Amino acid sequence: MAAQTVASASTDSAFGPASALSCRECGERFPLEPLFACEACFGPLEVAYDLPSGDPETLRKRIESGPNNIWRYAPLLPVPADVASKPNLNPGFTKLVKADNLARELGVTGGLHIKDDSGNPTHSFKDRVVAIALEAARTFGLTTLSCSSTGNLAGAVGAAAARAGFRSCVFIPHDLEEGKVVMAAVYGGELVGIEGTYDDVNRFCSELIGDPIGEGWGFVNVNLRPYYGEGSKTLAYEICEQLGWRLPDNIVIPIASGSQLTKIDKGLRELIALGLVEEKPYRIYGAQAEGCSPVSTAFKAGHDVVRPQKPNTIAKSLAIGNPADGPYVLDIARRTGGAVEDVNDEQVVDAIKLLARTEGIFAETAGGVTVGVLRKLIETGQLDPAGETVVLNTGDGLKTLDAVAPTSRPTATIRPSLDAFRAAGLAG
Amino acid sequence: MAAQTVASASTDSAFGPASALSCRECGERFPLEPLFACEACFGPLEVAYDLPSGDPETLRKRIESGPNNIWRYAPLLPVPADVASKPNLNPGFTKLVKADNLARELGVTGGLHIKDDSGNPTHSFKDRVVAIALEAARTFGLTTLSCSSTGNLAGAVGAAAARAGFRSCVFIPHDLEEGKVVMAAVYGGELVGIEGTYDDVNRFCSELIGDPIGEGWGFVNVNLRPYYGEGSKTLAYEICEQLGWRLPDNIVIPIASGSQLTKIDKGLRELIALGLVEEKPYRIYGAQAEGCSPVSTAFKAGHDVVRPQKPNTIAKSLAIGNPADGPYVLDIARRTGGAVEDVNDEQVVDAIKLLARTEGIFAETAGGVTVGVLRKLIETGQLDPAGETVVLNTGDGLKTLDAVAPTSRPTATIRPSLDAFRAAGLAG
Ligand SMILES: [Zn+2]
Ligand SMILES: [Zn+2]
Repeated sequence: MAAQTVASASTDSAFGPASALSCRECGERFPLEPLFACEACFGPLEVAYDLPSGDPETLRKRIESGPNNIWRYAPLLPVPADVASKPNLNPGFTKLVKADNLARELGVTGGLHIKDDSGNPTHSFKDRVVAIALEAARTFGLTTLSCSSTGNLAGAVGAAAARAGFRSCVFIPHDLEEGKVVMAAVYGGELVGIEGTYDDVNRFCSELIGDPIGEGWGFVNVNLRPYYGEGSKTLAYEICEQLGWRLPDNIVIPIASGSQLTKIDKGLRELIALGLVEEKPYRIYGAQAEGCSPVSTAFKAGHDVVRPQKPNTIAKSLAIGNPADGPYVLDIARRTGGAVEDVNDEQVVDAIKLLARTEGIFAETAGGVTVGVLRKLIETGQLDPAGETVVLNTGDGLKTLDAVAPTSRPTATIRPSLDAFRAAGLAG
Repeated sequence: MAAQTVASASTDSAFGPASALSCRECGERFPLEPLFACEACFGPLEVAYDLPSGDPETLRKRIESGPNNIWRYAPLLPVPADVASKPNLNPGFTKLVKADNLARELGVTGGLHIKDDSGNPTHSFKDRVVAIALEAARTFGLTTLSCSSTGNLAGAVGAAAARAGFRSCVFIPHDLEEGKVVMAAVYGGELVGIEGTYDDVNRFCSELIGDPIGEGWGFVNVNLRPYYGEGSKTLAYEICEQLGWRLPDNIVIPIASGSQLTKIDKGLRELIALGLVEEKPYRIYGAQAEGCSPVSTAFKAGHDVVRPQKPNTIAKSLAIGNPADGPYVLDIARRTGGAVEDVNDEQVVDAIKLLARTEGIFAETAGGVTVGVLRKLIETGQLDPAGETVVLNTGDGLKTLDAVAPTSRPTATIRPSLDAFRAAGLAG
């Protein structure tokens, strides 16, 4: 677990190999600060790197001897080299599960794997992105960690802030489900219910950032967003390392804002550039719920722009009607020869239960969306079942019990007697 | 991850280094079969080993190069050497979290660690014990995996059976909480509600085992219990390995049946015997909820026998009023210089929230019991805060939301305006 140094000029910096923020639209570069929009064109900013050069084998060995969490990839992330020694939830390196039973059911012959992020500390992939945003907040001297959230992110921010010694203040719509409120509150930070919709919460957070009240605040998904987004790259790194430093043929990724999908593609391209995996074609597939499918709709219509929708789906963690990274997702799906597809709520529930009964993995609705979309992609000939395929489960079924509750009931309820057991037809 | 062989006559067997079942009361030995009670004296049976002899360094290196789950300890478990290649949920190697914030709050100066088993596949330590029972069932040619359960075990059995291709049939009291029913049902096995109490469920399961209907059935916590119990040894192995192959000074362990505590002690003694850790004194502490504290009551009264109680506590996963291993727990606590202590429900809730706000870990009520008991042990001078201490969290707060729901609420609910934010006193 020793944080050795790698041959790169910038690894001694607080942001490791990161060299700047750069605008995804116009390419303008900015210093590594709590910025999120280009001052020239208002385009989104992302982290640019001066990645380690030199022998890939040395880098690979260094990664493999690192901790069993995302910090093994510290040389590829905007974090200091000694990041693993700082208090953080240390998410990542979750299981890549070989899903032979599910493969048989779906007719996948080239190998099927579930990347199961329910194994993260607060049981969703959000722990990855928050971990990076938190280190940026620490470097910037920010003292309050904040976000707007309707669920997973609230818990991830509350938990990470508690452990790292930050004040936290999380904003949620006031009418959130009881369970999500409890999870967001239990870590002891400030939790503020906002009388309004999730959009109202977001608008209010933007106001706060602009006001003197917001000085010293790090909103992980607003002013720390460029850093936050980089956390998703670790999914690409882990998938390839866990496959034995190899690219899969197909990856099926859920789309909310679309950020995760674009960062996974970025991570894969970095691994190729660094010589850590052999270059070969891979296809990126995006998965949406029919009740919130702006990107899928644009993909099918052949459009470059994404028309906002009003979400209405049980997959609430994906219910972003106006996804910021939608156009980039379309680009990547088309460039790699993938696709964007959607499934309806009934198919989501069926897919959650299919994954549970074949592999013993109880996924969030978002995992039902990806598995359901995989099935549909195969049935419609959009995904080659002879390819090696990875499907993401980004959350935990325990957080979306309502989705499966109506159809997950006891087989029978009986008196405690063998006669009753036989009469119920269970003795076969 | 290669399953190399270690110098031991029996590692080629289906039960690896295990040599027999032996009676804990009279020492009589029996073959490795689905037995659970001594035919001579009705005492409980446990697995006896012919553990690997030879250089500890070789064994340590083999373990360290194994998979990141309990199968890295296959040479010390009743499983075949190639166990890691069989479909199983592969639990274990969960985080040992250095809890500096909690240590400060409690005045622990010798180092405090949380062994956080909420990171297991179904988010409780039960995945460990079920994994071993399942491999025994596979070896015995059993085709149905079963158990009586009020919660965590039902999910663990359902999930493991699904992935491993076993039929499952799980028995629960018919009036179990909705959330637990859904989790037990979602994996698609048979789930049978029994009109009666948990004791009625247990009695019915014993009847089933004795009946021809039960042929081919493996009840993980009845006829597979000797194998099942061994899964808890892996907690001892992991704690010591994660400390750098060192024994801690104090371990605080929850008591339900008491099996887990006795097997952790067994695991520690094995590590000493094998030369994998240096021998030194360690103290084992048992933790109960006041509303179900038969072992703690006996400990304080200086008794050797445990008088059954009728449970009444929010810590339902520990609510066994007549714990089978109670007398063995008393033995171990006294022999090692530890203690058995209990806390009331209010203290359990306080401890859950203390752990959440200091370390970002949301524990089940059982984790509230251990952290609460640690605090009480320090306050009453029963545990030396200058010692290195490990506390177990065996489950996940998401499964016992009700415990903290009444006191985990939003700080404020406001209109989306800066004035409202200031008026709520949050702008400090
Ligand atoms: Zn620009
Ligand atoms: Zn006996």
